[in-house]
Amino acid sequence: MSQHQGRHFLQIPGPSPVPDRVLRAMDMPVIDHRSSAFAELAKAVFHGCQQIFKTAGPVIIFPSSGTGAWEAAIVNTLSPGDKVLMVETGHFATLWRQMAARWGIEVDFMPGDWRHGASPAEIEAKLKQDTAHTIKAVMVVHNETSTGVTSRVGDIRAAMDRAAHPALLLVDTISSLGSVDYRHDEWKVDVTVSCSQKGFMLPPGLGFNAISDKARAAAKTNKMPRSYWDWEEMLKPNAAGFFPYTPATNLLYGLREAIAMLLEEGLENVFARHKRLAAATRAAVTHWGLEVLCQEPAEYSPVLTAVLMPPGHDADAFRKVTLENYNMSLGSGLSKLAGKVFRIGHLGECNELTLLGALTGVEMGLSLAGVPHRAGGVAAAMSLLEERTHSNASAQLRVISS
Amino acid sequence: MSQHQGRHFLQIPGPSPVPDRVLRAMDMPVIDHRSSAFAELAKAVFHGCQQIFKTAGPVIIFPSSGTGAWEAAIVNTLSPGDKVLMVETGHFATLWRQMAARWGIEVDFMPGDWRHGASPAEIEAKLKQDTAHTIKAVMVVHNETSTGVTSRVGDIRAAMDRAAHPALLLVDTISSLGSVDYRHDEWKVDVTVSCSQKGFMLPPGLGFNAISDKARAAAKTNKMPRSYWDWEEMLKPNAAGFFPYTPATNLLYGLREAIAMLLEEGLENVFARHKRLAAATRAAVTHWGLEVLCQEPAEYSPVLTAVLMPPGHDADAFRKVTLENYNMSLGSGLSKLAGKVFRIGHLGECNELTLLGALTGVEMGLSLAGVPHRAGGVAAAMSLLEERTHSNASAQLRVISS
Amino acid sequence: MSQHQGRHFLQIPGPSPVPDRVLRAMDMPVIDHRSSAFAELAKAVFHGCQQIFKTAGPVIIFPSSGTGAWEAAIVNTLSPGDKVLMVETGHFATLWRQMAARWGIEVDFMPGDWRHGASPAEIEAKLKQDTAHTIKAVMVVHNETSTGVTSRVGDIRAAMDRAAHPALLLVDTISSLGSVDYRHDEWKVDVTVSCSQKGFMLPPGLGFNAISDKARAAAKTNKMPRSYWDWEEMLKPNAAGFFPYTPATNLLYGLREAIAMLLEEGLENVFARHKRLAAATRAAVTHWGLEVLCQEPAEYSPVLTAVLMPPGHDADAFRKVTLENYNMSLGSGLSKLAGKVFRIGHLGECNELTLLGALTGVEMGLSLAGVPHRAGGVAAAMSLLEERTHSNASAQLRVISS
Amino acid sequence: MSQHQGRHFLQIPGPSPVPDRVLRAMDMPVIDHRSSAFAELAKAVFHGCQQIFKTAGPVIIFPSSGTGAWEAAIVNTLSPGDKVLMVETGHFATLWRQMAARWGIEVDFMPGDWRHGASPAEIEAKLKQDTAHTIKAVMVVHNETSTGVTSRVGDIRAAMDRAAHPALLLVDTISSLGSVDYRHDEWKVDVTVSCSQKGFMLPPGLGFNAISDKARAAAKTNKMPRSYWDWEEMLKPNAAGFFPYTPATNLLYGLREAIAMLLEEGLENVFARHKRLAAATRAAVTHWGLEVLCQEPAEYSPVLTAVLMPPGHDADAFRKVTLENYNMSLGSGLSKLAGKVFRIGHLGECNELTLLGALTGVEMGLSLAGVPHRAGGVAAAMSLLEERTHSNASAQLRVISS
Repeated sequence: MSQHQGRHFLQIPGPSPVPDRVLRAMDMPVIDHRSSAFAELAKAVFHGCQQIFKTAGPVIIFPSSGTGAWEAAIVNTLSPGDKVLMVETGHFATLWRQMAARWGIEVDFMPGDWRHGASPAEIEAKLKQDTAHTIKAVMVVHNETSTGVTSRVGDIRAAMDRAAHPALLLVDTISSLGSVDYRHDEWKVDVTVSCSQKGFMLPPGLGFNAISDKARAAAKTNKMPRSYWDWEEMLKPNAAGFFPYTPATNLLYGLREAIAMLLEEGLENVFARHKRLAAATRAAVTHWGLEVLCQEPAEYSPVLTAVLMPPGHDADAFRKVTLENYNMSLGSGLSKLAGKVFRIGHLGECNELTLLGALTGVEMGLSLAGVPHRAGGVAAAMSLLEERTHSNASAQLRVISS
Repeated sequence: MSQHQGRHFLQIPGPSPVPDRVLRAMDMPVIDHRSSAFAELAKAVFHGCQQIFKTAGPVIIFPSSGTGAWEAAIVNTLSPGDKVLMVETGHFATLWRQMAARWGIEVDFMPGDWRHGASPAEIEAKLKQDTAHTIKAVMVVHNETSTGVTSRVGDIRAAMDRAAHPALLLVDTISSLGSVDYRHDEWKVDVTVSCSQKGFMLPPGLGFNAISDKARAAAKTNKMPRSYWDWEEMLKPNAAGFFPYTPATNLLYGLREAIAMLLEEGLENVFARHKRLAAATRAAVTHWGLEVLCQEPAEYSPVLTAVLMPPGHDADAFRKVTLENYNMSLGSGLSKLAGKVFRIGHLGECNELTLLGALTGVEMGLSLAGVPHRAGGVAAAMSLLEERTHSNASAQLRVISS
Repeated sequence: MSQHQGRHFLQIPGPSPVPDRVLRAMDMPVIDHRSSAFAELAKAVFHGCQQIFKTAGPVIIFPSSGTGAWEAAIVNTLSPGDKVLMVETGHFATLWRQMAARWGIEVDFMPGDWRHGASPAEIEAKLKQDTAHTIKAVMVVHNETSTGVTSRVGDIRAAMDRAAHPALLLVDTISSLGSVDYRHDEWKVDVTVSCSQKGFMLPPGLGFNAISDKARAAAKTNKMPRSYWDWEEMLKPNAAGFFPYTPATNLLYGLREAIAMLLEEGLENVFARHKRLAAATRAAVTHWGLEVLCQEPAEYSPVLTAVLMPPGHDADAFRKVTLENYNMSLGSGLSKLAGKVFRIGHLGECNELTLLGALTGVEMGLSLAGVPHRAGGVAAAMSLLEERTHSNASAQLRVISS
Repeated sequence: MSQHQGRHFLQIPGPSPVPDRVLRAMDMPVIDHRSSAFAELAKAVFHGCQQIFKTAGPVIIFPSSGTGAWEAAIVNTLSPGDKVLMVETGHFATLWRQMAARWGIEVDFMPGDWRHGASPAEIEAKLKQDTAHTIKAVMVVHNETSTGVTSRVGDIRAAMDRAAHPALLLVDTISSLGSVDYRHDEWKVDVTVSCSQKGFMLPPGLGFNAISDKARAAAKTNKMPRSYWDWEEMLKPNAAGFFPYTPATNLLYGLREAIAMLLEEGLENVFARHKRLAAATRAAVTHWGLEVLCQEPAEYSPVLTAVLMPPGHDADAFRKVTLENYNMSLGSGLSKLAGKVFRIGHLGECNELTLLGALTGVEMGLSLAGVPHRAGGVAAAMSLLEERTHSNASAQLRVISS
């Protein structure tokens, strides 16, 4: 069998494939984390993160998974008994809610069908009802990795403004940052939570909190025991390029390189590429006669596409077929979607031919697994990508001639 | 100037130099953390950790620094208001105490002079006085990285047994594990805290908790809010080779390789090597006429040696000289020892010639910095190492001939 | 533009993509080439090479490109003025002939149309005519990298046997070894010439000569000045695991790993995989309405497919389009085929999805470059691969149940 | 035993240790050697080589060992029956002579005692006698790797000028280039031969010829069969950044990085560092009461020191002791020096502490092997290095204040 021969196609929605440049940057001797050489590295990385989060404020980097960055956002801003508004956009929103509950937070969890993003209108309505301002924070997941639905954070901020509600806005950008348009300062987000292994194209191991002045002020008075995640403990040494405890040095080497790559390509180009690849994926899925889980076109995720299996067909059996026959990993359906959807990641170090190679694996896998579908999905994706290339080429010509 | 030419001598007491084999093992594509290939990796790593911690119980691995593993030990076993016994062995014991205090723990902090380890006799006395068993835990640092003093954990356990006190025993082995003899099960330690960047010879980014049944039972009833660090959340998926949130996959690749290296050399040989290199270092220091900070020969650290500067000489000025002229990093004095001591790390990927190269840098640096000393320390270290090699060779001959 | 984003598709017929395992094996400190550790490496590599060349005789490894290995074959076996029979299979056969001429060899160069392999029947006829046995060697290129035509070396040997002619048989397997069925001993080849950067999946830098006893005997009496390439100079130290001059140590590390990968997959599986991928490529080309350069189905190359451009369309302009828009390198037409063909490499570290990704790039590129073609080539390739997967699966079932 | 633990000290006079930066630069995917990206790499490398060889003329890079570059120098400039003048400086001069003889060159081999460099005066005398100008070339080894003697090429050139003799000057800089002051153009050298694994700090696999116009003119008329090594075949494609056959791409990546490192440090600083480390090594050797093989202070090699063993002691037995007990490789005595000398390499990626670490290994090894010596050699080396650091520091101060 050839299934383990050649390059593995890692098409899960994160960890995303790590570029060779980033792996090689990490593959260097560790240095003294109290040296001036380290301080230079740290400052470069902090500055770069600000460009990616689009913030002039501090970005805190924890040696942790993204889950740790969730916890940091909670323990630095909220107090036991505080009430927050969250939206059931999918599995990860549900997990974040569970975490909040463990910390004694009272969560008003607005129900969702896992096929739509957080509704700005419903949030606005909730906040307007809360005239006593008992809601301390609105917590939303920007890109639901479990469903491939991207909530409109800019619109949610506008809704909060219309409601003139003082709640903090906490946003999970774990699978969107560096891949999907995101603006910490412009959208007045108070805590942006993220991690290393998605748009940053790094191995897992770093958690991020970008924080507003308002969040930092909240941290001064909130009541929640903490030490490892404490922002102020971080911010003091960070200012000089140091950390209060041993940082994950080699991941920071990689982060510096990954940020350089994102800025070399240009963030807007990165976002456009993700949208283009996502559109091609949906063109294939639709052609196959399968259904994209996300039902709101304005909320299609640029980083992954969750696909519903036809009734009577198990998504995990299908994924096993693509793994064993075509050396490709697809994402599974999580919790209530288990067996019902599979997820195609198209984020980070991904380009046209990698995506199309992956889609041929999906199409052949459907066939091999006996899943009813209309052949030609890959061709549909190719048509869409060709068209975009043509119009890009024209656009460039226009730019050049103008 | 040649100071940045050639191989850097990283002689701080951690992060320790990462062997090429380990770096290269990490320099590989990340894989799906929900795949069977990942589960195999995780199981191999869990099994290997048990051999290093010398335990038949579970070892939990967090994506975190060692500080996170400290926090995990506290929040899983103690409750706000609990009383614990700690010993002021140095900077890190003080930091751990500070962390406990932040979590609402009442710490009975037995004072120390930073030149001795935790006293088994004093602990025994304290515990015997505590007839009501209000002390919930004894928390000690095995190897104080700030002072180069190694507390006798086996003796402390014996003292606790003599006192017939039910307190938990929590031990920080951050800079000792994998370098100094340590026995989680035999010494009935309840939580052993450790990390990746010292004896494991990995970059920073993993925190460890090895836990006893008693500790696990305590975790079932203690009252401390937690989510990220929760043991039970980890143990369930760990049993199948998975993690409740995205693990630091590439560090796990490195951990598998590092454990293989430790077992190939043989743990007892690893311990003997560290003791031999430490003895050579002290021979040099003593010859120079400088003072080793640790005052109790039975507590000399095998992984680092802290050296007192003669009055009127600044340790950091001296360290700057060795860094700029000889491309070597030495450890600084921490908190109340700042400027007064420098620390020589001799742990992990260290051998005779690397250590002696480092000691020549110290001796030339003392000269260059105008620190009074008697020349010939390196020669003293060489004599000691030669002797050991001779007697090793004889010992081997005996083994072979018998 | 996104053309340089994401993984580059290196679809030239060599150098082929180097697997991560091989790159990492090379990324290690160089060792003393006169040490016993080196001798172990060398012996392992010599033994492994024998398995790949399928010979019990010696395999000589030069620090050189494949061109150097060509020269070694000539200068060790022939003398100025010797007559040899060569076949004009394409660009590389022509270059080898040129080299022979520079060394004073008289070449009977049987003309060819660059679309067929060397004809066993014509060689037989030539040899039968040569009753005086003035022809000292038959020199053929197994797989013509410039045309994608694989000559039938086994049949050529049979033809030589039928002619009962004592000429040496020298074969260039530069782009076939490790990818296409090849049997040095069984086919009584006298010198097999090869290199590192094709089926061995290594960077360029090693040249190989597998030699028969007859070749070695010829080397004892031939008259050609030589030193660097002298076999006997190599064979003496090689026997003990050493080299007469400094070998390319790090490439040898990689070679050991690459051989391990080939043997893990199984050579016969490797050959079958290459044939399957080549068939899929031709299915696409044929569907597009383009012409495969090779005109003899029994001689289709498993490692590359050369494709004729429709008249009026420049192959290099097309290749520029795929490089700039899809980050994929295709091979150019060489010498008289320049601009007229492009070549698709599908060798070494290549699997189904990588190949299909590449074919989508070709299909979109044809469209973008305005080259007339029938859409659907990728789908045709997918159909063929699916079928093979199905029948493989059935074959395996049969094996298992029997 | 700890002999294989920790970093290996590779103290042979080449291959020299490869810096991590260089290894990592090589650890990248191979690219199309006919692409514009490759041409950029090649041009950068050619330009960089000119700076290292100090020439405005072409530098040719072969995929070969240094031995291949020797052969290239011969076959491009000389004809069978030509007479050349060579000097028996040691093992490698003898090997080069042997090679010349194999190519039909008549060598006037001026005898030497392997303890002195080539004598400018004797060369001058020989050339003056040759009034018929039958000597076509003077061929000398700049740094004899087998003896640690560096011939004075500038003086040899002056001698040739005084003799007004038109012979070509061919110089082997295999172990000197990039470590010892060398000036291809200023010294009017016609062919400078070198390789990758010494001063360039790369793995073995590249051979170099820097050539003068006069050498190139000679190549137009000389009579020596050649193909692989032919300069003109190289120079044509080289001008556009290409090669006539597949180049060793990944070594070229490394070469670009290595040149950058040499220029960052500054060539004159690199030379000074090598002289300083060599002086320290000799200070140790002399203190031990051992004899440096080189007898002419003006010819002490900056890159290695060959040390004579006391009578009755075998150098290889001693080397075995340092390898097995201290994980350090030393160079062996070659041909007539076998068993009589050991060689300490101190070139390339070497600095003070690495050298001193190595010297402690030598001193302890002498003791362990029972070789009579006076202890304190390391201390003598340290004294010398300290002094130099002091005076460097003063020199810098003067520079800064002026």
